[in-house]
Formats: sequence, C-alpha cells, structure tokens
Amino acid sequence: MDRENLFRDLAVETDSKILLVVLDGLGGLPGDDGKTELEAAWTPNMDELASHSALGLTHPISYGITPGSGPSHLALFGYDPLKHEIGRGVLENLGLEVELKKGDLAVRGNFCTVKERNGRLVVLDRRAGRIPTEKNIELCKKLQEAIGKIGDNVEALFTPGMEHRFALRLRGEGLEGCLEDTDPQHEGLEPFLPRATCLQGEKTVAVVEELLSMVRKLLKNEEKANFVLLRGFSMVPNIPSMEELFKLRPAAVATYPMYRGLARLVGMDLLPVEGMELEREVETLERHWGNYTFFYFHVKKTDSYGEDGNFQAKVRVIEAFDGLLPQLLSLGPQVVAITGDHSTPSKLRGHSWHPNPFLLFSPYVRREAQQVFSERACARGILGQFPAMEALPLMMAHALKLKKLGA
Amino acid sequence: MDRENLFRDLAVETDSKILLVVLDGLGGLPGDDGKTELEAAWTPNMDELASHSALGLTHPISYGITPGSGPSHLALFGYDPLKHEIGRGVLENLGLEVELKKGDLAVRGNFCTVKERNGRLVVLDRRAGRIPTEKNIELCKKLQEAIGKIGDNVEALFTPGMEHRFALRLRGEGLEGCLEDTDPQHEGLEPFLPRATCLQGEKTVAVVEELLSMVRKLLKNEEKANFVLLRGFSMVPNIPSMEELFKLRPAAVATYPMYRGLARLVGMDLLPVEGMELEREVETLERHWGNYTFFYFHVKKTDSYGEDGNFQAKVRVIEAFDGLLPQLLSLGPQVVAITGDHSTPSKLRGHSWHPNPFLLFSPYVRREAQQVFSERACARGILGQFPAMEALPLMMAHALKLKKLGA
Repeated sequence: MDRENLFRDLAVETDSKILLVVLDGLGGLPGDDGKTELEAAWTPNMDELASHSALGLTHPISYGITPGSGPSHLALFGYDPLKHEIGRGVLENLGLEVELKKGDLAVRGNFCTVKERNGRLVVLDRRAGRIPTEKNIELCKKLQEAIGKIGDNVEALFTPGMEHRFALRLRGEGLEGCLEDTDPQHEGLEPFLPRATCLQGEKTVAVVEELLSMVRKLLKNEEKANFVLLRGFSMVPNIPSMEELFKLRPAAVATYPMYRGLARLVGMDLLPVEGMELEREVETLERHWGNYTFFYFHVKKTDSYGEDGNFQAKVRVIEAFDGLLPQLLSLGPQVVAITGDHSTPSKLRGHSWHPNPFLLFSPYVRREAQQVFSERACARGILGQFPAMEALPLMMAHALKLKKLGA
Repeated sequence: MDRENLFRDLAVETDSKILLVVLDGLGGLPGDDGKTELEAAWTPNMDELASHSALGLTHPISYGITPGSGPSHLALFGYDPLKHEIGRGVLENLGLEVELKKGDLAVRGNFCTVKERNGRLVVLDRRAGRIPTEKNIELCKKLQEAIGKIGDNVEALFTPGMEHRFALRLRGEGLEGCLEDTDPQHEGLEPFLPRATCLQGEKTVAVVEELLSMVRKLLKNEEKANFVLLRGFSMVPNIPSMEELFKLRPAAVATYPMYRGLARLVGMDLLPVEGMELEREVETLERHWGNYTFFYFHVKKTDSYGEDGNFQAKVRVIEAFDGLLPQLLSLGPQVVAITGDHSTPSKLRGHSWHPNPFLLFSPYVRREAQQVFSERACARGILGQFPAMEALPLMMAHALKLKKLGA
C-alpha cells in the first residue's frame, strides 16, 4: 500500500487538537562558546515542557540535503517532499499572495533591458537596472490591462514583486509546466524562445509566445524595463488536502505570504493575523481555537536572523517565543510539536542540511528524563532521528487519530 | 525525483577537499575484557578529533546484512549498493588487477579434474587438487596463446590467481551476464553446459561453449587440471562516475588490487603507492594533494587481522593509523570522515553485519562533547545511525558542495 493511501485508510476524525509550532530555521550550529542558538537561548518553558515530552531530530529530505521552504514545509505537513514538487513559479506567486488553484501555470518574471541588434534582441541587463518597485507596479498594471486574456481563453495575472521581479499566473485549459526558462542567464545573449520539454507543452508554448510578443510591444518604449524574462514555469501541484488525507480540520497562523500560500496548497484555512508580532499570532490562535483540530503556527524571524548571520537576534526570537508558550499550552492542546522546517545556522547565513530539533508533547509519549530542549538533547532523544514527513503521523497517533493497521 | 538525479542536480564543483579514510573492517566486538578492538586501541589523535567532530553509525546495506567489499565500498562512495550490483566475476578480475570497462563480461574460473565416463564428462575434483600457482600460470599462458579470440571477434583474457583459481574477461559486442555457473558444486556430476537465463544471452552461450570446447582440447592431456569450471558470470556495471554524479575530482590511495579496482569502477584516479606500508600511502596523499577534491584513503590490514581472528594485531593497525593522523590533518582537508566499509570483528573471523563507527570532522558539525571514538560513542553520536550510502552526501554538504533543493 502506498504511504498516502495508508493514511487515507487509517485516519479518523476526532475532536482532539494538535498544535504544530514551526520556528522557521530553528536548528543551528555552535557559536564561539560552543552553544547553538537554541542552546544559548534562555528557554525555561520549552525546557520544562521537554521533560514531559519526547525529543528527536527530523530530516526534511535526506542526509546532506538542504531544503528550500517549499519542500521542507510539505514534509512537515506530512507529505513526501520528493513526490510533490513545488516549482519556483508557484513559490513566487504564493509569496506575493496570488491565489492559485490546480491547473494554474505559475511563472517567475524579471523585467529586463534588451536592445535590437541586426534584427535580433540582445539582453543588456537581466534586471533592468533594478527598477524601483513603484515602476514595477506601474508596468504590471499596464501589462494587466492590455493582456487580460490571451490565446484560447487563457487568463493572465501579473503581480508586481520587489524591484524588477514579478509573478505571472496563467489560468486556462490544458496548460503545462514543462517549459524552459527564457532567461539566457548571461547578458549579451538573446532571450531564449519558449520551448517545451514535453509533447503536451505545445499549446502552452503558443500562449507564452503570444504573451511575450504583446509584452514586447507594450514595453518597447520603456527606457530600462523594455522586455521580460520568464523562469520557473510550474504547474500548481495536485496535492491531496490534509482533510482528505489525514481527516484533520487544519488552520494556519502565519504572517508571511509564502507560508500562508504553502498552507493553502494543502487545504488549510488561513486565519487572519492583525500585525506581524508574535503576540498577534497568539491572539489569532486563541480566537479560532474552537473551530479546528490542527493548527500550524509559524514563527518566521528565527530564520530571518539566521539568514542575516545574527546569532544574538535569533536567540532573542527563540526566547520571545518561549515567553509566549504558556499561553499556547493553556489552550489545552492534546498534542504539541515544536520544531523547525529546516535549520538556518547563523554561522552559515542560510538554510542548511542539519536535522531539526523536534519536541513532541503528549500524555502518551515515553518521556525524557532531562529538562532541556536543544539539538544535542534531541540527537539523544527517545524518538531518534527520522524523516520530517513522519512527524505528522506521529502527532496524529499521539492525538489518537490513527486506527490500527490490520487485525 | 530519483536519488542519483537529485545529486546530479544539486552537486556543485568547488575547491574544498574531502578526505575519506576507510579502515577496512574497522568495527569489532568486545573481547575478553569487554572492549572492542577500536576501544582497546590507544588512539589519542582520533579521540581528540572526535571532540571537534560528529559521530554516528552507518549501515552498509541494512539491518543484519553482512556485505562483501564490493557492495560495502559502493555504499561508501555514495551509491545505492542494491541498485548497482558488482558480480563475483567482476570482483575476481578486479582483485587480479584486470582492467575492466563497461560492456566487458567477467567470470571466475577454477581448474578442475574431469574424467570421461560412457562418453560424458564427470567432475572428479572441482579444484584440480589445488595445483600450485606456478602450474596455474603456465596453463593460463597456454590458454591465452591458443584462445586469444573466439566467436564473432570476442577477446578472451585469462589471468591466473592463487592455486586453481583464475579470472576470465571476455570483451566484444553484445555480451550478457545472465549465464548460470557451469560448476555443478558437487563432485561426481557433469559440468553444467552454459545456459542463459535471459533471451539476449544466446550469443554469449555460444561464445562460452566454443571457449569450453577449445579449453577441453587444450587441457585434455593434463594430469590434474584437465578442464575448467566457470562461475559468477557478470557484466561490468554501468555506474555513473563520481565526477558525473557528485562533481568531485576523486582519487584513490589504496594498495590492494580489488580496492583499486572498485575505485576505478566509479571513476577515481588511482594514485601510485610505492610499497604496501601505511607511510607510503600517506606520502602518496601528500604528493597528489593539490590535484583532487576527494580522496579515498584505504587501510587494509584492520580487515585482514580481523579475518585472522587476531585481536591484538588489529588493535596495532588502528594505533598505527592513529599515529599518522596528524600528518593527514596537516594537509588541511575541509572535511574528514574516518570509518570502515563493514565490520570485521576478530571474534567472528570475518565480515559482519554490525554498523560502522563513523566520524565526521568539519567546522559545520554539531560537535560531540566527549573525546572518544568508539563503537559505543558512535551509537550515541549526534549523527545517529544511517545508511552508509548517505555518508558521501553528508561529506558533500559539509564541504559546501550541495545546493539547496527548491526555494
């Protein structure tokens, strides 16, 4: 039996509540004094909780593989991240709060500067001199007004990002994601023509060709941003919802668009948060506690400061979350998991391959003896090391939401 | 996405250097005083290194499976040992320093004694009375001279081994490895006729039939070695090179032919070592340090003494290597792994299924607190227990040679 069908068969709907706290990029590496960010942080509440919990380390993908947020979150939500691929175009659109549904083709775009030379276009600047975001907004509006529909009833949606970046969503029948980037990656070259790498992609190629020719006409007289390069063509993946697979009623408490988008891809309700502060996220959780059986609670800044290489600031975010933990616990979840989606050690200033500290609180765990939540305690934890996609089944089991297999 | 394509996608070439030290058969079992060979050995350098490293245990194949050197080394080199099979014929040829390339058919041979009885051949001695190696050399020369080419332009190469053993390599178009052994395994039986277990094997059957009939004519008047039995028909596996898969520039420092052969199968350069002593291997490493990004450094004697059941001698080899470790470290590798390919406990006088102690040194590990490198420290190590084929991706990651998956 395949893994997803196993859960389809065994999952049962119950009222017990699971709280999954994701401190983005939580895992770290030792700093000068030999302690990681999590070890350096003063976390009396998580440490106390650890002694009523089981600890372990989770691997987002596999040994040595550093994941982006797409695959690492899919794994946390219980899906095999190598089975369901989330393309770059999809992530770009999600990050700009574009609503996506199955069958949509999602693309990342750059405004660029081109020049005609002997009747051929040559890319002079792949980023159009990093035009200001205001200019980007103006240009996207212009494109949107002129190119609402193209080809055989395909809707185009242009959404401005920062500087020269934008997202493009194409919605219509029979679109395919098997198109190569038109970005030649180096200046002085011609933009590539749209080209399909699968037989079914020809219709999509025709649509994109028409779109590019319209774009070129519309932008022709712009000084800098006189054309676009398209990358990361990808179909919205056909992922079964958490409700279908796990019989959960899931909701997301997250402030950043990309994470909200990822949550929506697996069918979570997106709860409104009034502001970017952690306290506002907690209020949201409290307000909607009665209506769901699974909550994804996302803390972004651990990752952001890790990416900045700011060890101390990452420590402070962990401590701030720890201060709010009693409020979360007082809601009375049957199961709490606290973990990261991937590690973001300040030392590496980026995502890394190191496994995630994972804490599982439930009356039904074999408890740790010690009061400490850290990478090293987790490495020696009762749960051992396991793939991150198995964390959700573990939470389900501890919430008594999985039936017995066989008799 | 399949595992090998994942690495094809993510691997990047950089100048950082990885040193993989394989103490063959390193892992052991407790002797009379309760210590394993590694625990009994005085290893101040490895113990000190352990406190700057992460430890774990690696499983060559899976729980309870004792590997030969072929699969265990493939795993260490980052390949799935159950995906790429290395046949007995291939190993026998590699062990006798026969050059092999893709498309070659490799076979193990025995000289044997047969007798005609009612017009049929019957095996009297499957090992031809263990003829002296000198006789073997003489006979292989005779066969080689008479049977240089057979069938439709197939080259045969006979290489003498010890006593009655030899290796046969067939090189030509359209050969297949799906032939059954001609060795009936019991005396008093007829040698089996060559028989294919796949449809495409018929050409190979005809070639082997012709070869056997020529051999029989040539050896007919020999007193003991008057025929041959063939076993382990196997094609040289089509393994993508480490350069192709991992974008490494790999080199092997090993003195024994089989290990050099295994390294060549995955595309390593074989560095010349002037002598069999460990010190000579270290000199070779020093001499070629600038030219490669991955070094496989093989120490054979740990395994040999394990096979002999000589606990103390195995301890002394481990200690001798430990004494040379500072010289290796002074070369400045970014990543060092020290491990075995499989365990060879003196107590079992042979390979075993026990997982390998594994030490990973890099600035980017979550470090161990203790100064000890032993099976038991590794069992509680920060890296946990994992498949040996994931060790190479881990080394790659720590050498910053793997890009992020997804965004």
